[in-house]
Amino acid sequence: MVKVGIVGGTGYTGVELLRLLAQHPEVKLTAITSRKEAGTPVADMYPNLRGRVDLAFVTPDDARLTDCDVVFFATPHGVAMAQARELLAAGVRVIDLAADFRLKDTATFEKWYGMPHACPDILEEAVYGLPEINREQIKSARVIGLPGCYPTSVQLGYAPLFAGGRKLVDPKHLIADAKSGASGAGRKGETSLILAETADNFKAYGVKGHRHHPEIKQGLEAIAGYEVGLTFVPHLLPTIRGIHSTLYATILPEARDTDFQALFETYYAGEPFVDVLPAGSMPETRWVRASNYVRVAVHRPGNEDTLVILVVEDNLVKGASGQGVQCMNLMFGLPENTGLTHIPVLP
Amino acid sequence: MVKVGIVGGTGYTGVELLRLLAQHPEVKLTAITSRKEAGTPVADMYPNLRGRVDLAFVTPDDARLTDCDVVFFATPHGVAMAQARELLAAGVRVIDLAADFRLKDTATFEKWYGMPHACPDILEEAVYGLPEINREQIKSARVIGLPGCYPTSVQLGYAPLFAGGRKLVDPKHLIADAKSGASGAGRKGETSLILAETADNFKAYGVKGHRHHPEIKQGLEAIAGYEVGLTFVPHLLPTIRGIHSTLYATILPEARDTDFQALFETYYAGEPFVDVLPAGSMPETRWVRASNYVRVAVHRPGNEDTLVILVVEDNLVKGASGQGVQCMNLMFGLPENTGLTHIPVLP
Amino acid sequence: MVKVGIVGGTGYTGVELLRLLAQHPEVKLTAITSRKEAGTPVADMYPNLRGRVDLAFVTPDDARLTDCDVVFFATPHGVAMAQARELLAAGVRVIDLAADFRLKDTATFEKWYGMPHACPDILEEAVYGLPEINREQIKSARVIGLPGCYPTSVQLGYAPLFAGGRKLVDPKHLIADAKSGASGAGRKGETSLILAETADNFKAYGVKGHRHHPEIKQGLEAIAGYEVGLTFVPHLLPTIRGIHSTLYATILPEARDTDFQALFETYYAGEPFVDVLPAGSMPETRWVRASNYVRVAVHRPGNEDTLVILVVEDNLVKGASGQGVQCMNLMFGLPENTGLTHIPVLP
Amino acid sequence: MVKVGIVGGTGYTGVELLRLLAQHPEVKLTAITSRKEAGTPVADMYPNLRGRVDLAFVTPDDARLTDCDVVFFATPHGVAMAQARELLAAGVRVIDLAADFRLKDTATFEKWYGMPHACPDILEEAVYGLPEINREQIKSARVIGLPGCYPTSVQLGYAPLFAGGRKLVDPKHLIADAKSGASGAGRKGETSLILAETADNFKAYGVKGHRHHPEIKQGLEAIAGYEVGLTFVPHLLPTIRGIHSTLYATILPEARDTDFQALFETYYAGEPFVDVLPAGSMPETRWVRASNYVRVAVHRPGNEDTLVILVVEDNLVKGASGQGVQCMNLMFGLPENTGLTHIPVLP
Repeated sequence: MVKVGIVGGTGYTGVELLRLLAQHPEVKLTAITSRKEAGTPVADMYPNLRGRVDLAFVTPDDARLTDCDVVFFATPHGVAMAQARELLAAGVRVIDLAADFRLKDTATFEKWYGMPHACPDILEEAVYGLPEINREQIKSARVIGLPGCYPTSVQLGYAPLFAGGRKLVDPKHLIADAKSGASGAGRKGETSLILAETADNFKAYGVKGHRHHPEIKQGLEAIAGYEVGLTFVPHLLPTIRGIHSTLYATILPEARDTDFQALFETYYAGEPFVDVLPAGSMPETRWVRASNYVRVAVHRPGNEDTLVILVVEDNLVKGASGQGVQCMNLMFGLPENTGLTHIPVLP
Repeated sequence: MVKVGIVGGTGYTGVELLRLLAQHPEVKLTAITSRKEAGTPVADMYPNLRGRVDLAFVTPDDARLTDCDVVFFATPHGVAMAQARELLAAGVRVIDLAADFRLKDTATFEKWYGMPHACPDILEEAVYGLPEINREQIKSARVIGLPGCYPTSVQLGYAPLFAGGRKLVDPKHLIADAKSGASGAGRKGETSLILAETADNFKAYGVKGHRHHPEIKQGLEAIAGYEVGLTFVPHLLPTIRGIHSTLYATILPEARDTDFQALFETYYAGEPFVDVLPAGSMPETRWVRASNYVRVAVHRPGNEDTLVILVVEDNLVKGASGQGVQCMNLMFGLPENTGLTHIPVLP
Repeated sequence: MVKVGIVGGTGYTGVELLRLLAQHPEVKLTAITSRKEAGTPVADMYPNLRGRVDLAFVTPDDARLTDCDVVFFATPHGVAMAQARELLAAGVRVIDLAADFRLKDTATFEKWYGMPHACPDILEEAVYGLPEINREQIKSARVIGLPGCYPTSVQLGYAPLFAGGRKLVDPKHLIADAKSGASGAGRKGETSLILAETADNFKAYGVKGHRHHPEIKQGLEAIAGYEVGLTFVPHLLPTIRGIHSTLYATILPEARDTDFQALFETYYAGEPFVDVLPAGSMPETRWVRASNYVRVAVHRPGNEDTLVILVVEDNLVKGASGQGVQCMNLMFGLPENTGLTHIPVLP
Repeated sequence: MVKVGIVGGTGYTGVELLRLLAQHPEVKLTAITSRKEAGTPVADMYPNLRGRVDLAFVTPDDARLTDCDVVFFATPHGVAMAQARELLAAGVRVIDLAADFRLKDTATFEKWYGMPHACPDILEEAVYGLPEINREQIKSARVIGLPGCYPTSVQLGYAPLFAGGRKLVDPKHLIADAKSGASGAGRKGETSLILAETADNFKAYGVKGHRHHPEIKQGLEAIAGYEVGLTFVPHLLPTIRGIHSTLYATILPEARDTDFQALFETYYAGEPFVDVLPAGSMPETRWVRASNYVRVAVHRPGNEDTLVILVVEDNLVKGASGQGVQCMNLMFGLPENTGLTHIPVLP
């Protein structure tokens, strides 16, 4: 049994981690911390866990996290990097659901997250936790920076086009038009998030610039081995969960004979959680609701030179907590899908 | 033209007042105050008003409210009663959308709203702004305490059963099972109101006790002339607007031959905003969306002794701002429906 | 392994059965029938099952249902009773999710479902599949009539008040104000169910009379041993799943000292799926979303003589398919919660 | 007073026409036809119109449409072209909300709408009813083909870039990622449209090809005077109303110094219904809900060479019925905004 601690479990990625880990056959939940809620049974805050999770929140001091095998940080940006060194020194592995270990360039991190990086050396060894891209490095990683929710869907959607340095599409004018459910904004009392503001409504946001832009760019460039240019426009869906990314790319003249459907199917063959749909499919966010699956469809309207890739994921599962568990499984030599076999909830 | 000022227009009842008054042919909007937003054009906060409302928020000091004919208070409880005396002294009428002038008993007010009443003398002269019940008093009122959103629907639903002291149903065991859209909770950044907490979800709240309970009881007793006992259970709908009250009453043995459909139709004959539906109707909240109408249906399942009354209203219009404009029209001798002829928006 | 067949799996209770059974460790899914969809892989219709359910729909003739241990009917009313005799003769047990084996009185069945009953003898032996009430009979049953979604929530909410003939509340004036998500209406293309008609909207329906009324009445009278009178008003929520029943009862004078919280806790002690919440709780439908739990809270506002009981369930799980699996577990000697341990999905 | 008839008023564009026309000060509603609903009062089908529209549906034979000044067709494709000749002969003007008079090329019409065109000569004289582009022609038109909902938003969003043959962006790789509320699919009982299938969900559709693609292309080419290439991907929002189009274009090297914000503001200066938002704005669909406004924002992320234009409209108003009334006003010499001054409903 893997002894697991969670730092900061009061948000949505926290409760989702609890839902997944409480049903994981190889995990022993050891501690969950929250300064603010210390003493409160977790199930009082999240009654869906009643009878299933008996832990109460404890202060970080009482949590004895150094006794864990792995600690998840479901915290605001900046917390994991402040505590990682001590945990690593005690032989504990670290999986951060926030952004502390995503961006390899500390200047970029500082620009977008408004704080200096506390431990560039640990950042350097940290592995970006996208198993379909970095599976082997994850297995031996001590520190995982889990991808953001949008970056997971955008990178997995574009990856087959760039893997191994392929040159199939214009790399300078990628367009990712992404839509996310409101849980992606977290569990916080902001006026702009209340139902009377967001239901029966739709809008773009962060058009000028979004933190996930440099992360996607870094990821795609790592996959491609060359520079890419991306326009990324996120939108807020009036749904609870779900990301739908509509990705556009212009096929290069020399690549117009490519069988893109076959390319995607081959690239993701054998992947337990990436499902390349039959040609012509138009995936719906509910097809992956509450599951770790990503479903992808490739279109080329009118057989012209624009490729349209549709990607759906559950932002809290494959976009966050589920991907964290997937990484944990790899790190501890468990079958990759252990505890992640939930069938999507539809309707 | 009636010169109108609004104190505290940043909430939902405020923007709804602006929507209605900006289209009201006999109103000149003079000032709208907000300490916090002073200087901000109203249309920057509520872009639906762009090109239609040119006012900016001003501080109360700059508002020169004493030059108005009438001032609406779309403020938290306690504000109107602090400012009413000065306005009244200047000959300005006051319409409070909050609770300051609803409850006639100051002890009850203090118990439910957690503050002593600042001006019991003004409270005494204040008229409860439910035109279908108090039309004549409203016409000559200087101060109006507008009913709460739930109380409007519940009182209008029960009124025909109690008007003039009628004894048709057991007055001790009324049950009002009410459901409200989320705008009823106001425009405020509370975690419990965000879409990810409230969409695709439903719950009761305030079961132990709700501020609108004493108000409904007071209103029904004023209509009946005798004591009533009421169980009131509000619920939160995952909708933006709309209240649906399902009202139950046990028919007294001596009243079992009553034609309740006729009773309701007669009682509300000629009312511009209360629509008694044909027998068998089941009104939907969207049948009144964004309008000042209330629609009512009377049922007696199986011809047994339980009466079921269904009432729908838009909580922001007839449940708040529209009713305020209706009172204003009466107070200034305008046709009662002036500026209130919006047809409900469906779908 | 229990060999399971499903007749008519194209509706919501069908896909939910598949979701649950495909993750059930003691079940082998053998066949699923649909005349209309014969030949179509189940996962083509319900892509959430891709990679998890390999079956295609077959015609009833090709299904060889008599080789199964148990057959679920997720069909319109009338199908199960036409096929039950043959299956029973072959030693196959039958679990009907429709209404064929719910109402013991064939005249009542005929009145509400518009067809004569095809097999009154089988109806007589059929067991009403509400495990918390009929656990022992279910274990040895050959035929199960699963309760309707509303009846499950209403009966479980009222049961502790009537169990063993208790006389605690006025049995003649029960009021069940129930609200259901739209999946309760099934997967069918009716105009009144489309999103543009139902979203951001709320209404009552079936006020004049609803099929679940006689079923609830029959169930409560079986529990009580005496006659009850019930007003049942269902409402349509703009949610996908979830039933919230708000139940009212008038406490009898002689029962005013009863500790109802303790009564409920004692009655449901040890139940794996009924969770009596702490005093003062107000359950939300999402607290049970996609799970087999029912959560119940008991209130007595103002310590007056009206009892308010709040019950939430997922209409497709405990209100239908999950309850079917629970019965199946009992019938085949499996631990009652096998394959039903899904933690509710929140948010 | 303009005498107005409506053919086929049972769908959403029909009820929206009624809502607008019943409040239009210069219109006399004369007849509304529906074979299927003949005899039914309009307000029985659409109770929001109770007390405001007294008409009943009549058969086309009883409608005496030739007595009208103008007839709106809120019908399926193919109806208007079958009846237009007779009406025109009687001096009645025709405004078709369906597609009969949109596409100038009859072969394209036949390909996408699956029927031959019944009156190519009338098609030739028909004016495409987009006032911001064709105002003068509309004034004198006898027949109007109203734009589709998506085409209105996409053309208005791109128009300033192409007006007068401007060459500012790559005309071959336009990308329109559009999202529409469910009312855009009409009021019809299709399984794929019911709330349990569409709420809390999101998907693309028509990726392979959509009827609005050739219409947009035709419109943009008419504006530009040269050929354009467009990828158009519509998506289904879980909202009732509202279209949000996110438009992408690659700025040509020679146009990189263009002040696009100024370009848009200048182009739409004086337009009563197109509101170019301040730089940096991100419009929301509710900013135009139930109104005839379109709101547009222009972005150039990172000052790179990709332009992002955000456009919101209410698909039933500016995207259909409101635009029809706007055209009617122009055709009859009324101020263009007569009866169209509804302020958007927010929240």
